[in-house]
Amino acid sequence: MNTPNAVLPPAQNHPAGATPEAPVTQSLKSHSLAYIDDPQHGIRVPVTEIALEPSPNGQPNAPFRTYRTAGPGSDPVRGLSPFRSGWIEGRDDTEEYSGRARNLLDDGRSAVRRGAASAEWKGGRPVPRRAVDGRTVTQMHYARKGVVTPEMRFVALRENCDPELVRSEVAAGRAIIPANINHPESEPMIIGKAFLVKINANIGNSAVTSSIREEVDKLQWATRWGADTVMDLSTGDDIHTTREWLIRNSPVPIGTVPIYQALEKVNGEANALTWEIFRDTVIEQCEQGVDYMTVHAGVLLRYVPLTANRVTGIVSRGGSIMAGWCLAHHQENFLYTHFDELCEIFAKYDVAFSLGDGLRPGATADANDAAQFAELDTLAELTDRAWKHDVQVMVEGPGHVPFHLVRENVERQQQLCKGAPFYTLGPLVTDVAPGYDHITSAIGATEIARYGTAMLCYVTPKEHLGLPDRDDVKTGVITYKIAAHAADLAKGHPGAHERDDALSKARFEFRWRDQFALSLDPETAEAFHDETLPAEPAKTAHFCSMCGPKFCSMRISQDIRNEYGSAEAQAAIAEAASGMREKSQEFLESGGKVYLPELKVPAGS
Amino acid sequence: MNTPNAVLPPAQNHPAGATPEAPVTQSLKSHSLAYIDDPQHGIRVPVTEIALEPSPNGQPNAPFRTYRTAGPGSDPVRGLSPFRSGWIEGRDDTEEYSGRARNLLDDGRSAVRRGAASAEWKGGRPVPRRAVDGRTVTQMHYARKGVVTPEMRFVALRENCDPELVRSEVAAGRAIIPANINHPESEPMIIGKAFLVKINANIGNSAVTSSIREEVDKLQWATRWGADTVMDLSTGDDIHTTREWLIRNSPVPIGTVPIYQALEKVNGEANALTWEIFRDTVIEQCEQGVDYMTVHAGVLLRYVPLTANRVTGIVSRGGSIMAGWCLAHHQENFLYTHFDELCEIFAKYDVAFSLGDGLRPGATADANDAAQFAELDTLAELTDRAWKHDVQVMVEGPGHVPFHLVRENVERQQQLCKGAPFYTLGPLVTDVAPGYDHITSAIGATEIARYGTAMLCYVTPKEHLGLPDRDDVKTGVITYKIAAHAADLAKGHPGAHERDDALSKARFEFRWRDQFALSLDPETAEAFHDETLPAEPAKTAHFCSMCGPKFCSMRISQDIRNEYGSAEAQAAIAEAASGMREKSQEFLESGGKVYLPELKVPAGS
Repeated sequence: MNTPNAVLPPAQNHPAGATPEAPVTQSLKSHSLAYIDDPQHGIRVPVTEIALEPSPNGQPNAPFRTYRTAGPGSDPVRGLSPFRSGWIEGRDDTEEYSGRARNLLDDGRSAVRRGAASAEWKGGRPVPRRAVDGRTVTQMHYARKGVVTPEMRFVALRENCDPELVRSEVAAGRAIIPANINHPESEPMIIGKAFLVKINANIGNSAVTSSIREEVDKLQWATRWGADTVMDLSTGDDIHTTREWLIRNSPVPIGTVPIYQALEKVNGEANALTWEIFRDTVIEQCEQGVDYMTVHAGVLLRYVPLTANRVTGIVSRGGSIMAGWCLAHHQENFLYTHFDELCEIFAKYDVAFSLGDGLRPGATADANDAAQFAELDTLAELTDRAWKHDVQVMVEGPGHVPFHLVRENVERQQQLCKGAPFYTLGPLVTDVAPGYDHITSAIGATEIARYGTAMLCYVTPKEHLGLPDRDDVKTGVITYKIAAHAADLAKGHPGAHERDDALSKARFEFRWRDQFALSLDPETAEAFHDETLPAEPAKTAHFCSMCGPKFCSMRISQDIRNEYGSAEAQAAIAEAASGMREKSQEFLESGGKVYLPELKVPAGS
Repeated sequence: MNTPNAVLPPAQNHPAGATPEAPVTQSLKSHSLAYIDDPQHGIRVPVTEIALEPSPNGQPNAPFRTYRTAGPGSDPVRGLSPFRSGWIEGRDDTEEYSGRARNLLDDGRSAVRRGAASAEWKGGRPVPRRAVDGRTVTQMHYARKGVVTPEMRFVALRENCDPELVRSEVAAGRAIIPANINHPESEPMIIGKAFLVKINANIGNSAVTSSIREEVDKLQWATRWGADTVMDLSTGDDIHTTREWLIRNSPVPIGTVPIYQALEKVNGEANALTWEIFRDTVIEQCEQGVDYMTVHAGVLLRYVPLTANRVTGIVSRGGSIMAGWCLAHHQENFLYTHFDELCEIFAKYDVAFSLGDGLRPGATADANDAAQFAELDTLAELTDRAWKHDVQVMVEGPGHVPFHLVRENVERQQQLCKGAPFYTLGPLVTDVAPGYDHITSAIGATEIARYGTAMLCYVTPKEHLGLPDRDDVKTGVITYKIAAHAADLAKGHPGAHERDDALSKARFEFRWRDQFALSLDPETAEAFHDETLPAEPAKTAHFCSMCGPKFCSMRISQDIRNEYGSAEAQAAIAEAASGMREKSQEFLESGGKVYLPELKVPAGS
């Protein structure tokens, strides 16, 4: 996306008080917050604008505009402005209500002991809203009625596409806009294979480590580097309050796995879980503003034994909780038996399903097995059931899959689930590199996204070993931006190549600062350069560190361009080249002997 | 490879004096040097043996054996033992000779000024050998005559395959064993798509930075982590002497790009290069023991204009040197016109060609273009010409290629070059992530290796930004071991999955130390684990940091296995699963409605 819109001052969705560029979101000096403006519909979409230097020949280079996930920035204790409230209220199909009463156990037993969470949220908090009786308030519902909502227009401006494409994809279930009416701070975004591939960053505390403020910092850090959604996977103390801090500060949709909190409420005893406890937890989270929830409703009792002789059994936490419950009670998974009730709740808040793959493989040896694909059949059934309620759905995928088996996962899911967005964790294409699983999984992620996966859940270097810290979050996000962008390029997504081409042009022209600024991580690129050639003049030097100043391959290329780059010279060359291409093609088709064009070496050689 | 050979003491190819485990190659305590022994042919192949703990049920786990590139270790000032000398002399087709006279300019003008290189090699140095008149001493020559050499037997033991497979692939040109007769210290290895995918690490000084001892350290460091070959791309001072240190200490084949040194000899002026200077440089390097050389003989005069309007022109250093020369003289590339003479030289020492892709794309925008594929046509022609001399050949490939265009590169090369091994740099699948190009390129590398690329040239995080230091070398090597291994898995290479399965089993059984030991980088895995759970007991704890001690998904999986893992239970389950699979397949084939097996929820649900 590099549309030539004017830079405008912040509008009401980015009020002056909200520090448009808080320190945590500040980048290089050449990066700034700009807007794409649709005054007719009162919409302005923040983008990151990258100022570029002129080319060596004096030609200016237009500022480069790129998709922005960082939002306007917020003071963590105050949160973001609820800029979507007007849109939501304007539809006149929701109502405020008192909401579920505060229950200290929502924050775990230590909060009960203390009478408070360890750091209560004191910022503004919207009064909970829900659909008025008999109404459905999902983006899918509006889309199916032919309504183009402001959320859809916002998305279309972000994606540089026709709003009608957004509406029709959402209506068909091939894309979702996770946008709980109780999270009016979030900037609408879309997950679907017709759009840019998205990435999710997992954060959250655990019984072992970390604090609320650390998690808010990770949220802002993750969105600063490009996380399109963030999942709060907290399993320790203060689950409710941590989530409140996160949602109030999040410009991106927040996802959760409600069974984690439900399990905390029953003291970690999976057998003690009930539909009622789960339902109460879901409503609690709907009222807070969670935009999508992972629900492991496809882990059916009869599938559990299929995992018995796997190398690594069941590795999904939610999957094993439900499997444990099913076995203990010898009953069908209550998430499955109560699925329609869940749909009715989600429809009142516009919460999207992320249908969890509780039986995903945890080792390449277990990939694409009977348990995994049996669950996928059920997820397809549940997708249809949710759609009957106009509830948005995406489907989760693995996991650990050797490279040659990756494609089957997405093609099977797309066919069975009728194009519902696929959302996968990696997959990791080998198990032998703990400490590098951001890389093992980015390889699989690129492959699976190429064939239509809509969102990739990041994996950090700490996967399998520990909890990610701030550096790990950044590494995970950048690595997944690479996978997502590489897939966009491979899919031929309109405009995806523009950033590559702008950076390559800057590289060829020795505009070092522009190379850094256009990269996914300008600070790291600049720091690496400076390790070899720290002096400031080196940033404008017409040589690079690989060759040194005396010989430069790029300088020779410039000479070639000067000599042969004219339209006239190229017309003649193109004709010759096309002849050679044809000959080459003939060769490939015939499998015959090598074509040797006559050498035209000038006299004197 | 996990063959049950006994651990034997070092043999004559690993003499006691050579410190079998020098500090630079020392790993975790559970790693040790072992041997696969073929006493009949006097061959012993070093492997790394990883001791494993017993499973929680008391069952012992056999030590895991894996391919070893680190060699026996050497004291850098003394070098390795020339253990292949007996094999070479035993063939009775080579002779010692005085060799080319020492020329101080081989080490650059500062060596001429000083009368010496900055750190002269003082260790042992074999007297140069060459083929006796009228003889060809290449592995390809022997293979075509039906001879299985000790080098081929060594390779077969390393690869756990039949020596006849090695011989026949080398004879057909589909694999090479780079093994200059003047590098008797090297442990034979094979590059070909029927074998394990290999990786190369580039090292070498430049005009800008670094010293000889640093380069030797990088060599030992790279092979310690798994580099199968190392290229010395030095372009600064002391080129000859740096190479001497490297070859004398290298247990893996050494590759070079001789035009770099030739250019130094003419003070960096490409126009001043001549065939005579290049030829002299090649002989100098043949006598030192370089195992393969990159030669940019495919950059033909008429192809140069095809690059004029590329986004990044010619980015290969060798390619641009030759393009610059061709343009300056308006003559055909002397490497092309003298190619048969080069073959005659290579045949006398068993140096392999690495046919350089001087016109490879330097930006995704330039991938698979007319210039690149025109050069590939010529590389195919040159492959045939080299084979007429029984000279071994591999062919180099790009570079920067968007993911969906990667496969075409290897399939086209394999068809045109009749299966000659392909050796590619990455490719990088996007240009937007300088600082992370080990990752952008590992994605492309996995894809291109999956379809038959035999060796991958690593890319470090410093690519495009600076020269790699020790940490970058390690990161590059580990990242490429991931790509190569993921491709081996995807190709279904026999035994490739054994390490994944052993590690996954250790993970499932909470054998933390075995997880670390079996990983590609045990130190990093252990360090990451210890950041979250540093205490020693945590390494044997039956929970991991993601879930904490209270709830553990893996424990539930163990319960499931205990209940349903018996042969009897599984027989029943397999029958049920197979029925479901069939139904699912029927569905996929029919494109029909979702199959809903009858729910068998027990009474009381």
